[in-house]
Amino acid sequence: MKLLNKLATVTVASAIVVGSALGNVQSTYASGDGKASNDTPDVSYMGNTENPKNVIFLVGDGMGPSYNSAYRYFADNPETKEMEKTAFDQHLVGNQRTNPADPKENVTDSAASATAFSSGHKTYNGAIGVDENKENVKTVLEQAKENGKSTGLVSTAEITDATPAAYASHVDSRDKKDEIAQQFYNDKINGEHTVDVLLGGGVKYFGEENGNLADKFKKDGYDVVDNKTDLQKSTSKQVLGLFADGNMPLQIDAPDKNPKLLDMTETAVNKLQQNDKGFFLMVEGASIDKAGHPNDVTGVMSEMEGFEKSFDYAMNYAKEHKDTLVVATADHSTGGLSIAKGEDYLWNPQVIHDMKHSGTYMTEQIAKGEDAEKVINEGYGFDVEASQIDKIKDEAEKLKKLNEDDDAYEGQLQELQNAIQKPINDKSNTGWTTTGHTGEDVNTYAYGPGSDKFQGNIDNTDNAKNIFEFLKSEAK
Amino acid sequence: MKLLNKLATVTVASAIVVGSALGNVQSTYASGDGKASNDTPDVSYMGNTENPKNVIFLVGDGMGPSYNSAYRYFADNPETKEMEKTAFDQHLVGNQRTNPADPKENVTDSAASATAFSSGHKTYNGAIGVDENKENVKTVLEQAKENGKSTGLVSTAEITDATPAAYASHVDSRDKKDEIAQQFYNDKINGEHTVDVLLGGGVKYFGEENGNLADKFKKDGYDVVDNKTDLQKSTSKQVLGLFADGNMPLQIDAPDKNPKLLDMTETAVNKLQQNDKGFFLMVEGASIDKAGHPNDVTGVMSEMEGFEKSFDYAMNYAKEHKDTLVVATADHSTGGLSIAKGEDYLWNPQVIHDMKHSGTYMTEQIAKGEDAEKVINEGYGFDVEASQIDKIKDEAEKLKKLNEDDDAYEGQLQELQNAIQKPINDKSNTGWTTTGHTGEDVNTYAYGPGSDKFQGNIDNTDNAKNIFEFLKSEAK
Repeated sequence: MKLLNKLATVTVASAIVVGSALGNVQSTYASGDGKASNDTPDVSYMGNTENPKNVIFLVGDGMGPSYNSAYRYFADNPETKEMEKTAFDQHLVGNQRTNPADPKENVTDSAASATAFSSGHKTYNGAIGVDENKENVKTVLEQAKENGKSTGLVSTAEITDATPAAYASHVDSRDKKDEIAQQFYNDKINGEHTVDVLLGGGVKYFGEENGNLADKFKKDGYDVVDNKTDLQKSTSKQVLGLFADGNMPLQIDAPDKNPKLLDMTETAVNKLQQNDKGFFLMVEGASIDKAGHPNDVTGVMSEMEGFEKSFDYAMNYAKEHKDTLVVATADHSTGGLSIAKGEDYLWNPQVIHDMKHSGTYMTEQIAKGEDAEKVINEGYGFDVEASQIDKIKDEAEKLKKLNEDDDAYEGQLQELQNAIQKPINDKSNTGWTTTGHTGEDVNTYAYGPGSDKFQGNIDNTDNAKNIFEFLKSEAK
Repeated sequence: MKLLNKLATVTVASAIVVGSALGNVQSTYASGDGKASNDTPDVSYMGNTENPKNVIFLVGDGMGPSYNSAYRYFADNPETKEMEKTAFDQHLVGNQRTNPADPKENVTDSAASATAFSSGHKTYNGAIGVDENKENVKTVLEQAKENGKSTGLVSTAEITDATPAAYASHVDSRDKKDEIAQQFYNDKINGEHTVDVLLGGGVKYFGEENGNLADKFKKDGYDVVDNKTDLQKSTSKQVLGLFADGNMPLQIDAPDKNPKLLDMTETAVNKLQQNDKGFFLMVEGASIDKAGHPNDVTGVMSEMEGFEKSFDYAMNYAKEHKDTLVVATADHSTGGLSIAKGEDYLWNPQVIHDMKHSGTYMTEQIAKGEDAEKVINEGYGFDVEASQIDKIKDEAEKLKKLNEDDDAYEGQLQELQNAIQKPINDKSNTGWTTTGHTGEDVNTYAYGPGSDKFQGNIDNTDNAKNIFEFLKSEAK
């Protein structure tokens, strides 16, 4: 799509995947022949009657509906009149409800929603693989392993973070990351480790200070890797890949040695598919949310792009492997992102393309002691107003005077990040309402056998219920 | 759904329509038997092969996806554990893209989107039934009339407002409301007026100052009515109902003599269905947007409730009349509404239920000279902080000093409304980013013959393209 403004002449270099005009969703409808009742449409259908052997479940953490639309604006080629579709668009089948079963909160966190995805149980915010009464609940990944399938968890966050954790551990609080890592190692199904492929961040939960779990995995036959090259050279069917001490850096800022979400997804599928009984793989674009919380639109778009590539890879895999179901959704939306704010009917993604680093990265660099002027010059891709630069420097100075242990440190870090992001949110005209989550339904994308079960408006627990149904029919 | 807070014991009196567990969307999927190509799923299906004789097209103006989710939270019965579904939920089939073809703006207004709905053409913001070159484009309503069907336009806004206007008039700017009303009267198809049923606000465009159009319609056989009783007693197949000088008041504030959107929809259908050749009816919940612009969450929820009732009526009509297609969608989202703001993972709709009037109404009352204290006492359903009351009174005083013709008047009116709405937005924890529109995709709901064409992620122009296809096949 072409906008007749001064920015329209800049060619967008980002990958654009144009969907086919026809999605994979077609309906049956009870025609007026009197054979179907008024309220219950005919549910007979052609095809799609077999259980999927493989399931790839992708979670765009925080990827609310405005993220998907904003990403289409962002990925649009301004040289063409039409706004190009994203890889997601052709596979939209519906949306889903996200509210948790929490005594105090009615907007979900990632733990409650991941437990809904993994187990089919609504639970309280913070719960990992446990229900409202803190009782362990079985997950679809565990059922897949019981069925003899291979299993994998991939995330750009710490691999012990809420979403992957809820598939293969059971603790009453998402903060118990040491315990989550312990359960990843100790819990066995039919004598095997529960998860064959574990890829993400979180080195610190697998080292000396938590029982040398990485070494133990290695002794049990897992390849243990910490960079892209070694990941891709890995030959064992089982692998523990930990690529950062905490969460992995955002794609726009990451060093070349780091695998991207696509690299991790490809490796995971390549390993898991070697099992004749099939596999279950959960892939999380976790950093969409990590960037959404501090309202870092540059980071959000960078991570959406990474997630789209993994999504497209998975969909293409399913098209070539007719026994594979791919479902992609989000756990909630983050930040109240809106396409335009204030009064103008215009969102300007070009300035986001022009950014050289995310606001998160720029904030971290200053926090690490880098000169604010240098970080500003190397981060922005456009001229920032002098008053905004002064504000950033001012906040950076205030941060310098604090120690990481000071109570005021985190708050001041957020003030600095707010100052860093204001120019890009203003110039792109991006709106935000919160540093937390919001409660709108999130989109569902699906393709492959069983995808009809994910159509329409469903509940986030239905993801697990459907997958359990496939796995249980198979086990008979 | 039950929240264990002090508000949970209040029973919600609003109507709750619980959808059936099974939506009307079922898919076919190309199974792995090699009969379908990798990229093109099998599109064969059972039923749904006939063109709809009747089409009811409902537009929730400004009803972005967060509005539909927020309304579910709002309509939830707090006495039950589950969050009840709305009438919309069981009919969700996908969503649609809304971006206009405007040289300067990439977030749509209601005129460009209504022209997309009515004609299948992307156009510039402000365009009514004309394309980017200001050339007239044919609308589905005009095609329906050519096919011998009856036609209707219903809106809670002025009936000359952008959405209804774009179905039966052609002007280069939405502001030309006198001209739009003139075209409603003057344009004929096969010797007949283009629209048989016109119901909404906008008396001022049909009186003496614009050629006594209402009288002329009356002479041509239309019933002309201005209240609910006369509307329901009307016997002519053609009717012009104008129930307010400008836009109709919000449902929560409206006098009993006014018809609600449901009343207008029922009357329209009852009249239009008398034609054996069928009908096309557009029904607009216009005031969802009118309340969204000033970020009036009370007004928004009140209007969503009214729109849901009309939607539910139309869906039930379609279930009983198998030749009827119902499609409901929105033209864009308004205000950047988010469910929760700030840091808390909680949205509190109970305080919205407690409100006795919308913020829009309270603002108007003060502007009309009502005592601010009285308006505050009669409007809020909860105790407002003293500082917030002082702020409202302060803004009211400032407004008093201005004349409606003063340049500063509109801005001060907005300041007053902001002050009035801050308590309710804060207490409900509702987030907003703009007084304009935002660009996220909007939900599509559909049921009946042809509804499969609206599934997945489609463009707003596809609404017209699909309906034209039905109408053109029929005309052959």
